[in-house]
Amino acid sequence: MEGRDLAGSRKNDVTGGTAAADVQRVRAGSVERGRDTLAVEEPLEIRISYVADGRRKIESLCVTMRTPGHDLDLAAGFLFTENVISSPAQIEQIAHCVPDGSQEAACNTVRVDVADGVDFDLERLRRNFYASSSCGVCGKASIEALKIISGPMLQANEFRITESVVHSLPDLLHSNQLVFQQTGGLHAAGLFDDRGALAGCAEDVGRHNAVDKVIGAQLRGGRVPISDRLLLVSGRSSFEILQKALAARIPFVAAVGPPSSLAVDLAKKFGITLLGFVRDGRFNIYAGSERIADR
Amino acid sequence: MEGRDLAGSRKNDVTGGTAAADVQRVRAGSVERGRDTLAVEEPLEIRISYVADGRRKIESLCVTMRTPGHDLDLAAGFLFTENVISSPAQIEQIAHCVPDGSQEAACNTVRVDVADGVDFDLERLRRNFYASSSCGVCGKASIEALKIISGPMLQANEFRITESVVHSLPDLLHSNQLVFQQTGGLHAAGLFDDRGALAGCAEDVGRHNAVDKVIGAQLRGGRVPISDRLLLVSGRSSFEILQKALAARIPFVAAVGPPSSLAVDLAKKFGITLLGFVRDGRFNIYAGSERIADR
Repeated sequence: MEGRDLAGSRKNDVTGGTAAADVQRVRAGSVERGRDTLAVEEPLEIRISYVADGRRKIESLCVTMRTPGHDLDLAAGFLFTENVISSPAQIEQIAHCVPDGSQEAACNTVRVDVADGVDFDLERLRRNFYASSSCGVCGKASIEALKIISGPMLQANEFRITESVVHSLPDLLHSNQLVFQQTGGLHAAGLFDDRGALAGCAEDVGRHNAVDKVIGAQLRGGRVPISDRLLLVSGRSSFEILQKALAARIPFVAAVGPPSSLAVDLAKKFGITLLGFVRDGRFNIYAGSERIADR
Repeated sequence: MEGRDLAGSRKNDVTGGTAAADVQRVRAGSVERGRDTLAVEEPLEIRISYVADGRRKIESLCVTMRTPGHDLDLAAGFLFTENVISSPAQIEQIAHCVPDGSQEAACNTVRVDVADGVDFDLERLRRNFYASSSCGVCGKASIEALKIISGPMLQANEFRITESVVHSLPDLLHSNQLVFQQTGGLHAAGLFDDRGALAGCAEDVGRHNAVDKVIGAQLRGGRVPISDRLLLVSGRSSFEILQKALAARIPFVAAVGPPSSLAVDLAKKFGITLLGFVRDGRFNIYAGSERIADR
Protein backbone atom coordinates (compact mmCIF):
# COMPACT_ATOMS: atom_id res chain seq x y z
CA MET A 1 0.00 0.00 0.00
CA GLU A 2 1.52 3.27 -1.08
CA GLY A 3 0.53 6.45 0.74
CA ARG A 4 0.86 10.01 -0.44
CA ASP A 5 0.61 13.27 1.46
CA LEU A 6 -2.55 13.95 3.43
CA ALA A 7 -4.02 16.52 1.11
CA GLY A 8 -4.96 14.91 -2.13
CA SER A 9 -3.98 11.54 -0.76
CA ARG A 10 -5.53 8.57 -2.45
CA LYS A 11 -4.36 5.28 -1.09
CA ASN A 12 -4.17 2.44 -3.58
CA ASP A 13 -6.88 0.49 -1.89
CA VAL A 14 -9.52 3.20 -2.00
CA THR A 15 -12.55 2.08 -3.96
CA GLY A 16 -16.08 3.44 -4.16
CA GLY A 17 -16.03 5.63 -1.09
CA THR A 18 -14.33 3.09 1.16
CA ALA A 19 -10.74 2.38 2.11
CA ALA A 20 -9.11 -0.55 3.89
CA ALA A 21 -6.97 -0.07 6.98
CA ASP A 22 -5.13 -2.28 9.45
CA VAL A 23 -6.93 -2.60 12.75
CA GLN A 24 -6.54 -4.33 16.10
CA ARG A 25 -9.91 -5.37 17.51
CA VAL A 26 -9.92 -5.47 21.30
CA ARG A 27 -12.59 -7.21 23.36
CA ALA A 28 -12.41 -8.54 26.90
CA GLY A 29 -8.65 -8.72 27.04
CA SER A 30 -8.19 -10.40 23.67
CA VAL A 31 -6.89 -8.70 20.56
CA GLU A 32 -7.38 -9.75 16.94
CA ARG A 33 -5.46 -8.19 14.07
CA GLY A 34 -7.33 -7.66 10.84
CA ARG A 35 -8.47 -5.23 8.17
CA ASP A 36 -11.27 -2.72 8.54
CA THR A 37 -13.28 -0.80 5.97
CA LEU A 38 -13.33 2.97 6.47
CA ALA A 39 -15.43 5.72 4.90
CA VAL A 40 -13.12 7.83 2.77
CA GLU A 41 -12.69 11.47 3.71
CA GLU A 42 -10.75 13.63 1.25
CA PRO A 43 -10.69 17.32 0.42
CA LEU A 44 -12.56 18.57 -2.63
CA GLU A 45 -11.56 21.96 -3.95
CA ILE A 46 -14.27 23.87 -5.83
CA ARG A 47 -12.92 26.38 -8.34
CA ILE A 48 -15.20 28.84 -10.01
CA SER A 49 -14.74 30.51 -13.36
CA TYR A 50 -16.81 33.66 -13.82
CA VAL A 51 -16.99 36.79 -15.90
CA ALA A 52 -16.05 40.08 -14.25
CA ASP A 53 -15.39 43.35 -16.04
CA GLY A 54 -15.73 41.59 -19.38
CA ARG A 55 -13.03 39.03 -18.65
CA ARG A 56 -13.25 35.46 -17.42
CA LYS A 57 -11.45 34.80 -14.15
CA ILE A 58 -10.90 31.62 -12.20
CA GLU A 59 -10.61 31.44 -8.44
CA SER A 60 -10.54 28.79 -5.77
CA LEU A 61 -13.81 29.13 -3.89
CA CYS A 62 -13.41 26.62 -1.09
CA VAL A 63 -12.31 23.20 0.05
CA THR A 64 -14.77 20.82 1.63
CA MET A 65 -13.94 17.49 3.26
CA ARG A 66 -16.06 14.92 1.48
CA THR A 67 -16.39 11.27 0.50
CA PRO A 68 -15.35 10.98 -3.16
CA GLY A 69 -18.17 10.24 -5.60
CA HIS A 70 -20.83 12.47 -7.15
CA ASP A 71 -18.36 15.35 -6.91
CA LEU A 72 -20.03 17.30 -9.73
CA ASP A 73 -23.41 16.98 -8.02
CA LEU A 74 -21.80 18.16 -4.79
CA ALA A 75 -20.23 21.23 -6.39
CA ALA A 76 -23.41 22.14 -8.29
CA GLY A 77 -25.59 21.56 -5.25
CA PHE A 78 -23.31 23.59 -3.02
CA LEU A 79 -23.43 26.59 -5.37
CA PHE A 80 -27.22 26.26 -5.61
CA THR A 81 -28.00 25.86 -1.90
CA GLU A 82 -25.58 28.69 -1.04
CA ASN A 83 -27.48 30.89 -3.51
CA VAL A 84 -24.52 31.48 -5.84
CA ILE A 85 -26.58 30.15 -8.77
CA SER A 86 -30.32 29.88 -9.11
CA SER A 87 -30.82 27.68 -12.19
CA PRO A 88 -29.04 24.89 -14.08
CA ALA A 89 -28.62 27.24 -17.05
CA GLN A 90 -26.22 29.31 -15.00
CA ILE A 91 -23.69 26.46 -15.12
CA GLU A 92 -21.98 26.56 -18.52
CA GLN A 93 -19.65 23.71 -17.77
CA ILE A 94 -18.68 21.59 -14.78
CA ALA A 95 -15.87 19.06 -14.70
CA HIS A 96 -13.00 17.61 -12.69
CA CYS A 97 -9.69 19.39 -13.23
CA VAL A 98 -7.62 16.38 -14.18
CA PRO A 99 -3.86 16.98 -14.10
CA ASP A 100 -1.90 15.36 -16.93
CA GLY A 101 -1.26 11.74 -16.17
CA SER A 102 -3.90 11.51 -13.43
CA GLN A 103 -7.15 9.62 -13.49
CA GLU A 104 -10.41 11.51 -13.14
CA ALA A 105 -11.52 9.19 -10.35
CA ALA A 106 -8.56 10.28 -8.23
CA CYS A 107 -9.08 13.98 -8.82
CA ASN A 108 -9.95 16.23 -5.91
CA THR A 109 -10.68 19.45 -7.79
CA VAL A 110 -13.85 20.48 -9.61
CA ARG A 111 -14.13 23.55 -11.80
CA VAL A 112 -17.49 25.21 -12.38
CA ASP A 113 -17.83 27.75 -15.20
CA VAL A 114 -20.76 30.01 -14.44
CA ALA A 115 -22.50 31.94 -17.18
CA ASP A 116 -21.85 35.57 -17.93
CA GLY A 117 -24.35 37.60 -15.94
CA VAL A 118 -24.20 35.53 -12.75
CA ASP A 119 -23.72 38.05 -10.00
CA PHE A 120 -20.67 36.68 -8.31
CA ASP A 121 -18.80 38.52 -5.59
CA LEU A 122 -16.05 36.25 -4.32
CA GLU A 123 -15.21 38.31 -1.26
CA ARG A 124 -18.82 38.56 -0.20
CA LEU A 125 -19.23 34.84 -0.67
CA ARG A 126 -16.16 33.90 1.27
CA ARG A 127 -17.20 36.14 4.09
CA ASN A 128 -20.79 34.99 4.06
CA PHE A 129 -20.20 31.30 4.44
CA TYR A 130 -21.43 30.62 7.91
CA ALA A 131 -20.49 27.84 10.22
CA SER A 132 -22.67 24.82 10.21
CA SER A 133 -23.98 23.52 13.48
CA SER A 134 -21.68 20.59 13.01
CA CYS A 135 -18.44 22.47 12.97
CA GLY A 136 -16.49 25.34 14.39
CA VAL A 137 -15.59 26.55 10.98
CA CYS A 138 -17.05 29.73 9.75
CA GLY A 139 -16.82 32.97 7.91
CA LYS A 140 -20.13 34.74 7.96
CA ALA A 141 -19.23 38.30 8.77
CA SER A 142 -21.86 38.87 11.42
CA ILE A 143 -25.06 37.58 12.89
CA GLU A 144 -26.87 40.13 10.73
CA ALA A 145 -25.94 38.05 7.70
CA LEU A 146 -27.87 35.10 9.08
CA LYS A 147 -31.06 37.11 8.84
CA ILE A 148 -30.95 37.36 5.08
CA ILE A 149 -31.41 33.69 4.45
CA SER A 150 -32.94 32.71 1.28
CA GLY A 151 -36.22 33.57 -0.24
CA PRO A 152 -39.85 33.95 0.59
CA MET A 153 -42.03 31.50 2.47
CA LEU A 154 -42.82 28.31 0.56
CA GLN A 155 -46.17 28.39 -1.15
CA ALA A 156 -48.74 25.97 0.19
CA ASN A 157 -48.96 23.27 -2.45
CA GLU A 158 -50.58 19.91 -3.03
CA PHE A 159 -47.60 17.84 -1.90
CA ARG A 160 -48.81 15.35 0.72
CA ILE A 161 -47.44 12.08 2.11
CA THR A 162 -49.36 9.48 4.07
CA GLU A 163 -48.25 8.30 7.47
CA SER A 164 -47.59 4.78 6.23
CA VAL A 165 -45.33 6.06 3.45
CA VAL A 166 -43.35 8.06 6.03
CA HIS A 167 -42.82 4.95 8.13
CA SER A 168 -41.38 3.15 5.09
CA LEU A 169 -38.72 5.74 4.24
CA PRO A 170 -35.86 4.98 6.68
CA ASP A 171 -35.59 1.36 5.50
CA LEU A 172 -35.62 2.51 1.87
CA LEU A 173 -32.81 4.97 2.53
CA HIS A 174 -30.83 2.49 4.60
CA SER A 175 -30.98 -0.18 1.89
CA ASN A 176 -29.30 2.35 -0.43
CA GLN A 177 -26.56 3.30 2.07
CA LEU A 178 -23.94 1.03 0.59
CA VAL A 179 -20.90 2.66 2.20
CA PHE A 180 -22.61 2.91 5.59
CA GLN A 181 -23.34 -0.79 5.52
CA GLN A 182 -19.62 -1.47 5.12
CA THR A 183 -18.24 1.13 7.51
CA GLY A 184 -20.93 1.93 10.09
CA GLY A 185 -20.21 5.61 9.76
CA LEU A 186 -21.58 7.85 7.05
CA HIS A 187 -24.38 10.31 6.63
CA ALA A 188 -27.07 9.83 4.00
CA ALA A 189 -29.73 11.97 2.37
CA GLY A 190 -32.55 10.83 0.09
CA LEU A 191 -35.31 12.45 -1.94
CA PHE A 192 -38.66 10.68 -2.15
CA ASP A 193 -41.85 11.30 -4.09
CA ASP A 194 -45.31 11.26 -2.53
CA ARG A 195 -45.66 7.51 -2.99
CA GLY A 196 -42.35 6.86 -1.22
CA ALA A 197 -40.34 6.09 -4.36
CA LEU A 198 -36.66 7.03 -4.08
CA ALA A 199 -35.80 9.89 -6.44
CA GLY A 200 -32.15 10.18 -5.46
CA CYS A 201 -29.78 9.50 -2.59
CA ALA A 202 -26.20 10.15 -1.57
CA GLU A 203 -23.77 9.34 1.21
CA ASP A 204 -20.97 11.44 2.62
CA VAL A 205 -18.83 11.87 5.73
CA GLY A 206 -20.45 15.30 5.87
CA ARG A 207 -24.20 15.41 6.30
CA HIS A 208 -24.47 18.73 4.50
CA ASN A 209 -22.48 17.32 1.61
CA ALA A 210 -24.93 14.43 1.30
CA VAL A 211 -27.76 16.96 1.01
CA ASP A 212 -25.86 19.04 -1.54
CA LYS A 213 -25.19 15.90 -3.61
CA VAL A 214 -28.86 14.90 -3.87
CA ILE A 215 -29.97 18.45 -4.56
CA GLY A 216 -27.14 18.99 -7.06
CA ALA A 217 -28.15 15.90 -9.04
CA GLN A 218 -31.67 17.31 -9.37
CA LEU A 219 -30.32 20.69 -10.41
CA ARG A 220 -28.07 19.19 -13.06
CA GLY A 221 -31.06 17.23 -14.39
CA GLY A 222 -33.06 20.45 -14.66
CA ARG A 223 -35.47 19.36 -11.93
CA VAL A 224 -35.53 22.47 -9.73
CA PRO A 225 -37.31 23.84 -7.80
CA ILE A 226 -37.84 20.53 -5.97
CA SER A 227 -41.34 21.31 -4.79
CA ASP A 228 -42.75 17.77 -4.96
CA ARG A 229 -40.21 15.80 -2.99
CA LEU A 230 -39.48 14.90 0.63
CA LEU A 231 -35.89 15.15 1.87
CA LEU A 232 -34.89 12.48 4.42
CA VAL A 233 -31.61 12.81 6.33
CA SER A 234 -30.07 9.99 8.35
CA GLY A 235 -29.10 12.08 11.38
CA ARG A 236 -30.33 15.21 13.06
CA SER A 237 -31.81 18.24 11.34
CA SER A 238 -30.20 21.62 11.93
CA PHE A 239 -30.38 25.17 10.70
CA GLU A 240 -28.20 24.39 7.74
CA ILE A 241 -30.20 21.37 6.53
CA LEU A 242 -33.38 23.48 6.60
CA GLN A 243 -31.60 26.38 4.90
CA LYS A 244 -30.51 24.08 2.05
CA ALA A 245 -34.01 22.60 1.70
CA LEU A 246 -35.40 26.12 1.56
CA ALA A 247 -32.94 27.17 -1.16
CA ALA A 248 -34.13 24.21 -3.25
CA ARG A 249 -37.79 24.90 -2.30
CA ILE A 250 -38.23 21.41 -0.81
CA PRO A 251 -41.48 21.54 1.21
CA PHE A 252 -40.94 18.49 3.43
CA VAL A 253 -37.92 17.53 5.55
CA ALA A 254 -37.77 14.37 7.66
CA ALA A 255 -34.91 13.19 9.85
CA VAL A 256 -34.11 9.94 11.60
CA GLY A 257 -32.81 12.01 14.52
CA PRO A 258 -34.17 15.04 16.38
CA PRO A 259 -34.25 18.65 15.13
CA SER A 260 -32.41 21.52 16.74
CA SER A 261 -34.40 24.46 18.06
CA LEU A 262 -33.37 26.59 15.08
CA ALA A 263 -34.40 23.91 12.58
CA VAL A 264 -37.92 24.05 14.05
CA ASP A 265 -37.92 27.86 14.00
CA LEU A 266 -36.85 27.93 10.36
CA ALA A 267 -39.41 25.29 9.30
CA LYS A 268 -42.23 27.23 10.96
CA LYS A 269 -41.11 30.56 9.58
CA PHE A 270 -40.86 29.38 5.99
CA GLY A 271 -43.71 26.86 5.82
CA ILE A 272 -41.66 23.66 5.65
CA THR A 273 -43.03 20.44 7.12
CA LEU A 274 -40.49 19.04 9.60
CA LEU A 275 -40.51 15.54 11.09
CA GLY A 276 -38.02 14.08 13.56
CA PHE A 277 -37.29 10.65 15.07
CA VAL A 278 -38.64 8.94 11.93
CA ARG A 279 -37.81 5.37 12.97
CA ASP A 280 -39.23 2.25 14.54
CA GLY A 281 -42.75 2.90 13.28
CA ARG A 282 -43.10 6.35 14.81
CA PHE A 283 -42.29 9.99 14.13
CA ASN A 284 -42.75 13.45 15.62
CA ILE A 285 -44.28 16.38 13.72
CA TYR A 286 -42.62 19.70 14.60
CA ALA A 287 -44.11 21.88 11.84
CA GLY A 288 -46.50 21.69 8.89
CA SER A 289 -48.70 18.73 9.88
CA GLU A 290 -51.06 19.57 7.00
CA ARG A 291 -48.73 17.76 4.59
CA ILE A 292 -49.39 14.42 6.30
CA ALA A 293 -52.19 13.27 3.99
CA ASP A 294 -54.21 11.33 6.54
CA ARG A 295 -53.98 13.77 9.46
CA MET B 1 -44.15 32.07 24.31
CA GLU B 2 -42.66 35.05 22.58
CA GLY B 3 -40.41 34.53 19.59
CA ARG B 4 -37.91 36.92 18.04
CA ASP B 5 -36.20 36.83 14.68
CA LEU B 6 -34.19 33.74 13.79
CA ALA B 7 -30.78 35.27 14.27
CA GLY B 8 -30.21 36.00 17.89
CA SER B 9 -33.54 34.49 18.76
CA ARG B 10 -33.94 33.38 22.31
CA LYS B 11 -37.31 31.95 23.07
CA ASN B 12 -38.62 32.52 26.57
CA ASP B 13 -38.57 28.85 27.42
CA VAL B 14 -34.92 28.27 26.59
CA THR B 15 -33.01 27.06 29.62
CA GLY B 16 -29.62 25.41 29.95
CA GLY B 17 -29.11 24.37 26.35
CA THR B 18 -32.63 23.05 25.86
CA ALA B 19 -35.85 24.55 24.55
CA ALA B 20 -39.43 23.33 24.65
CA ALA B 21 -41.53 22.97 21.48
CA ASP B 22 -44.99 21.76 20.57
CA VAL B 23 -44.99 18.33 18.99
CA GLN B 24 -47.41 15.78 17.59
CA ARG B 25 -46.22 12.24 18.28
CA VAL B 26 -47.43 9.76 15.66
CA ARG B 27 -47.37 6.02 16.13
CA ALA B 28 -49.44 3.35 14.40
CA GLY B 29 -52.19 5.68 13.28
CA SER B 30 -52.58 7.46 16.58
CA VAL B 31 -51.41 10.97 17.34
CA GLU B 32 -50.68 12.53 20.69
CA ARG B 33 -50.10 16.24 21.17
CA GLY B 34 -47.48 17.30 23.69
CA ARG B 35 -44.29 19.18 24.38
CA ASP B 36 -40.82 18.08 23.37
CA THR B 37 -37.38 19.14 24.59
CA LEU B 38 -35.00 20.29 21.85
CA ALA B 39 -31.28 20.97 21.86
CA VAL B 40 -30.81 24.69 21.34
CA GLU B 41 -28.96 25.81 18.22
CA GLU B 42 -28.10 29.51 18.02
CA PRO B 43 -25.45 31.54 16.25
CA LEU B 44 -22.42 32.74 18.19
CA GLU B 45 -20.45 35.58 16.66
CA ILE B 46 -16.77 35.74 17.59
CA ARG B 47 -15.27 39.23 17.38
CA ILE B 48 -11.58 39.75 17.68
CA SER B 49 -9.76 42.83 18.87
CA TYR B 50 -6.13 43.00 17.80
CA VAL B 51 -3.29 45.45 17.36
CA ALA B 52 -2.24 46.30 13.82
CA ASP B 53 0.01 49.19 12.78
CA GLY B 54 0.10 50.39 16.37
CA ARG B 55 -3.69 50.70 16.66
CA ARG B 56 -6.26 48.37 18.15
CA LYS B 57 -8.91 47.21 15.68
CA ILE B 58 -11.99 45.08 16.17
CA GLU B 59 -13.44 42.82 13.52
CA SER B 60 -16.06 40.12 13.31
CA LEU B 61 -14.17 36.89 12.73
CA CYS B 62 -16.96 34.38 12.23
CA VAL B 63 -20.31 33.02 13.27
CA THR B 64 -20.69 29.45 14.40
CA MET B 65 -23.98 27.66 15.12
CA ARG B 66 -23.69 26.36 18.64
CA THR B 67 -25.58 25.33 21.75
CA PRO B 68 -25.38 28.23 24.23
CA GLY B 69 -23.22 27.63 27.28
CA HIS B 70 -19.44 27.74 27.77
CA ASP B 71 -19.27 30.37 25.03
CA LEU B 72 -16.00 31.82 26.29
CA ASP B 73 -14.40 28.36 26.29
CA LEU B 74 -15.71 27.83 22.77
CA ALA B 75 -14.27 31.10 21.48
CA ALA B 76 -10.91 30.57 23.20
CA GLY B 77 -10.73 26.95 22.06
CA PHE B 78 -11.62 27.86 18.51
CA LEU B 79 -8.83 30.45 18.30
CA PHE B 80 -6.38 27.95 19.84
CA THR B 81 -7.24 24.93 17.69
CA GLU B 82 -7.27 27.09 14.56
CA ASN B 83 -3.76 28.26 15.50
CA VAL B 84 -4.70 31.94 15.87
CA ILE B 85 -3.28 31.92 19.41
CA SER B 86 -0.79 29.55 20.96
CA SER B 87 -0.98 30.30 24.70
CA PRO B 88 -3.48 31.58 27.28
CA ALA B 89 -1.33 34.69 27.77
CA GLN B 90 -2.20 35.79 24.25
CA ILE B 91 -5.78 36.41 25.39
CA GLU B 92 -5.86 39.75 27.22
CA GLN B 93 -9.58 39.69 27.79
CA ILE B 94 -12.55 37.59 26.73
CA ALA B 95 -16.18 38.43 27.43
CA HIS B 96 -19.71 38.46 26.07
CA CYS B 97 -20.64 41.70 24.33
CA VAL B 98 -23.76 42.51 26.27
CA PRO B 99 -25.95 45.19 24.70
CA ASP B 100 -27.51 47.64 27.12
CA GLY B 101 -30.58 46.17 28.70
CA SER B 102 -29.78 42.58 27.72
CA GLN B 103 -28.80 39.72 29.93
CA GLU B 104 -25.42 38.10 29.46
CA ALA B 105 -27.01 34.66 29.33
CA ALA B 106 -28.98 35.70 26.24
CA CYS B 107 -25.98 37.16 24.45
CA ASN B 108 -24.77 35.63 21.23
CA THR B 109 -21.57 37.62 20.72
CA VAL B 110 -18.17 37.08 22.31
CA ARG B 111 -15.26 39.49 22.00
CA VAL B 112 -11.69 38.30 22.36
CA ASP B 113 -8.92 40.88 22.86
CA VAL B 114 -5.65 39.33 21.77
CA ALA B 115 -2.34 40.68 23.01
CA ASP B 116 -0.16 43.01 21.03
CA GLY B 117 2.29 40.92 19.08
CA VAL B 118 -0.14 38.16 18.11
CA ASP B 119 0.40 37.72 14.41
CA PHE B 120 -3.13 38.12 13.16
CA ASP B 121 -4.00 38.37 9.49
CA LEU B 122 -7.78 38.48 9.21
CA GLU B 123 -7.94 37.91 5.47
CA ARG B 124 -5.61 34.94 5.62
CA LEU B 125 -7.64 33.50 8.47
CA ARG B 126 -10.95 33.95 6.76
CA ARG B 127 -9.62 32.34 3.63
CA ASN B 128 -7.91 29.53 5.44
CA PHE B 129 -10.85 28.20 7.34
CA TYR B 130 -11.49 24.89 5.73
CA ALA B 131 -14.66 22.92 5.56
CA SER B 132 -15.20 20.30 8.16
CA SER B 133 -16.15 16.84 7.05
CA SER B 134 -19.57 17.50 8.52
CA CYS B 135 -20.53 20.41 6.36
CA GLY B 136 -20.36 21.94 2.96
CA VAL B 137 -19.17 25.22 4.33
CA CYS B 138 -15.68 26.30 3.63
CA GLY B 139 -13.16 28.93 2.87
CA LYS B 140 -9.74 27.41 2.71
CA ALA B 141 -8.24 28.88 -0.42
CA SER B 142 -6.85 25.68 -1.85
CA ILE B 143 -5.95 22.11 -1.10
CA GLU B 144 -2.37 23.29 -0.66
CA ALA B 145 -3.48 25.01 2.53
CA LEU B 146 -4.51 21.69 4.02
CA LYS B 147 -0.94 20.51 3.89
CA ILE B 148 0.31 23.10 6.33
CA ILE B 149 -1.62 21.73 9.24
CA SER B 150 -0.26 22.35 12.59
CA GLY B 151 3.00 21.48 14.10
CA PRO B 152 5.50 18.69 14.36
CA MET B 153 4.77 15.09 15.23
CA LEU B 154 3.79 14.49 18.84
CA GLN B 155 6.66 13.40 21.04
CA ALA B 156 6.42 9.90 22.39
CA ASN B 157 5.57 10.35 26.07
CA GLU B 158 4.62 8.33 29.08
CA PHE B 159 0.86 8.77 28.71
CA ARG B 160 -0.74 5.31 28.77
CA ILE B 161 -4.28 4.04 29.45
CA THR B 162 -5.29 0.50 30.30
CA GLU B 163 -7.86 -1.40 28.31
CA SER B 164 -10.28 -1.57 31.23
CA VAL B 165 -10.14 2.21 31.70
CA VAL B 166 -10.94 2.68 27.99
CA HIS B 167 -14.01 0.45 28.32
CA SER B 168 -15.27 2.63 31.20
CA LEU B 169 -15.10 5.96 29.35
CA PRO B 170 -18.31 6.01 27.23
CA ASP B 171 -20.54 5.51 30.28
CA LEU B 172 -18.67 8.25 32.15
CA LEU B 173 -19.15 10.67 29.28
CA HIS B 174 -22.77 9.67 28.79
CA SER B 175 -23.63 10.26 32.44
CA ASN B 176 -22.41 13.84 31.98
CA GLN B 177 -24.40 14.46 28.78
CA LEU B 178 -27.26 16.23 30.46
CA VAL B 179 -28.74 17.85 27.35
CA PHE B 180 -28.42 14.65 25.31
CA GLN B 181 -30.35 12.76 27.94
CA GLN B 182 -33.23 15.20 27.53
CA THR B 183 -33.18 15.62 23.76
CA GLY B 184 -31.59 12.54 22.23
CA GLY B 185 -29.54 14.68 19.93
CA LEU B 186 -26.31 16.37 20.81
CA HIS B 187 -22.61 15.74 20.42
CA ALA B 188 -20.31 15.45 23.40
CA ALA B 189 -16.58 15.56 24.01
CA GLY B 190 -14.70 14.71 27.20
CA LEU B 191 -11.14 14.82 28.44
CA PHE B 192 -9.94 12.02 30.73
CA ASP B 193 -6.75 11.38 32.67
CA ASP B 194 -4.89 8.07 32.64
CA ARG B 195 -7.01 6.67 35.46
CA GLY B 196 -10.24 7.47 33.62
CA ALA B 197 -11.18 10.52 35.72
CA LEU B 198 -13.16 13.13 33.82
CA ALA B 199 -11.12 16.32 33.44
CA GLY B 200 -13.72 18.25 31.44
CA CYS B 201 -16.67 17.72 29.13
CA ALA B 202 -19.00 19.70 26.88
CA GLU B 203 -22.05 19.22 24.70
CA ASP B 204 -22.98 21.01 21.51
CA VAL B 205 -25.11 20.60 18.39
CA GLY B 206 -21.76 20.79 16.59
CA ARG B 207 -19.26 18.08 17.35
CA HIS B 208 -16.33 20.37 16.60
CA ASN B 209 -17.75 22.96 18.95
CA ALA B 210 -17.90 20.40 21.76
CA VAL B 211 -14.19 19.70 21.20
CA ASP B 212 -13.34 23.42 21.13
CA LYS B 213 -15.27 23.93 24.38
CA VAL B 214 -13.34 21.27 26.31
CA ILE B 215 -10.00 22.37 24.89
CA GLY B 216 -10.81 26.05 25.45
CA ALA B 217 -11.59 25.42 29.13
CA GLN B 218 -8.14 23.86 29.55
CA LEU B 219 -6.51 26.75 27.71
CA ARG B 220 -8.23 29.34 29.88
CA GLY B 221 -7.09 27.42 32.97
CA GLY B 222 -3.50 27.54 31.73
CA ARG B 223 -3.41 23.79 31.19
CA VAL B 224 -1.97 23.57 27.68
CA PRO B 225 -0.42 21.69 25.96
CA ILE B 226 -2.80 18.88 26.93
CA SER B 227 -0.24 16.11 26.67
CA ASP B 228 -1.59 13.89 29.46
CA ARG B 229 -5.24 13.55 28.54
CA LEU B 230 -7.42 11.37 26.33
CA LEU B 231 -10.09 13.07 24.20
CA LEU B 232 -13.31 11.06 23.76
CA VAL B 233 -15.92 12.14 21.21
CA SER B 234 -19.45 10.76 21.10
CA GLY B 235 -19.65 10.29 17.34
CA ARG B 236 -17.24 9.65 14.52
CA SER B 237 -13.70 10.97 14.27
CA SER B 238 -12.73 12.97 11.22
CA PHE B 239 -9.88 15.04 9.89
CA GLU B 240 -10.99 18.06 11.85
CA ILE B 241 -11.26 16.31 15.22
CA LEU B 242 -7.72 14.99 14.80
CA GLN B 243 -6.48 18.38 13.63
CA LYS B 244 -7.90 20.03 16.76
CA ALA B 245 -6.38 17.36 19.02
CA LEU B 246 -3.04 17.90 17.31
CA ALA B 247 -3.20 21.67 17.81
CA ALA B 248 -3.74 21.06 21.55
CA ARG B 249 -1.04 18.30 21.53
CA ILE B 250 -3.51 15.70 22.83
CA PRO B 251 -1.82 12.31 22.30
CA PHE B 252 -4.87 10.04 22.50
CA VAL B 253 -8.23 10.31 20.69
CA ALA B 254 -11.07 7.83 21.14
CA ALA B 255 -14.46 7.86 19.45
CA VAL B 256 -17.70 5.99 20.05
CA GLY B 257 -18.11 5.82 16.26
CA PRO B 258 -15.72 4.95 13.45
CA PRO B 259 -12.91 7.10 12.06
CA SER B 260 -12.73 8.42 8.53
CA SER B 261 -9.82 7.43 6.34
CA LEU B 262 -8.21 10.84 6.79
CA ALA B 263 -8.53 10.70 10.59
CA VAL B 264 -6.47 7.49 10.52
CA ASP B 265 -3.92 9.01 8.13
CA LEU B 266 -3.52 12.07 10.35
CA ALA B 267 -3.21 10.01 13.55
CA LYS B 268 -0.48 7.85 11.99
CA LYS B 269 1.38 10.77 10.51
CA PHE B 270 1.50 12.77 13.74
CA GLY B 271 1.83 9.99 16.30
CA ILE B 272 -1.64 10.20 17.86
CA THR B 273 -3.28 7.08 19.26
CA LEU B 274 -6.70 6.63 17.62
CA LEU B 275 -9.46 4.30 18.79
CA GLY B 276 -12.88 3.79 17.22
CA PHE B 277 -16.10 1.97 18.11
CA VAL B 278 -15.36 2.40 21.83
CA ARG B 279 -18.59 0.88 23.09
CA ASP B 280 -20.19 -2.29 24.41
CA GLY B 281 -16.96 -3.56 25.94
CA ARG B 282 -14.91 -3.40 22.76
CA PHE B 283 -12.84 -1.00 20.70
CA ASN B 284 -10.67 -0.90 17.59
CA ILE B 285 -7.11 0.46 17.54
CA TYR B 286 -6.31 2.30 14.30
CA ALA B 287 -3.01 3.93 15.32
CA GLY B 288 -0.61 4.15 18.26
CA SER B 289 -1.36 0.89 20.11
CA GLU B 290 1.69 1.49 22.34
CA ARG B 291 -0.40 3.86 24.47
CA ILE B 292 -2.68 1.02 25.60
CA ALA B 293 -0.82 0.19 28.80
CA ASP B 294 -1.49 -3.53 28.84
CA ARG B 295 -0.91 -4.30 25.15
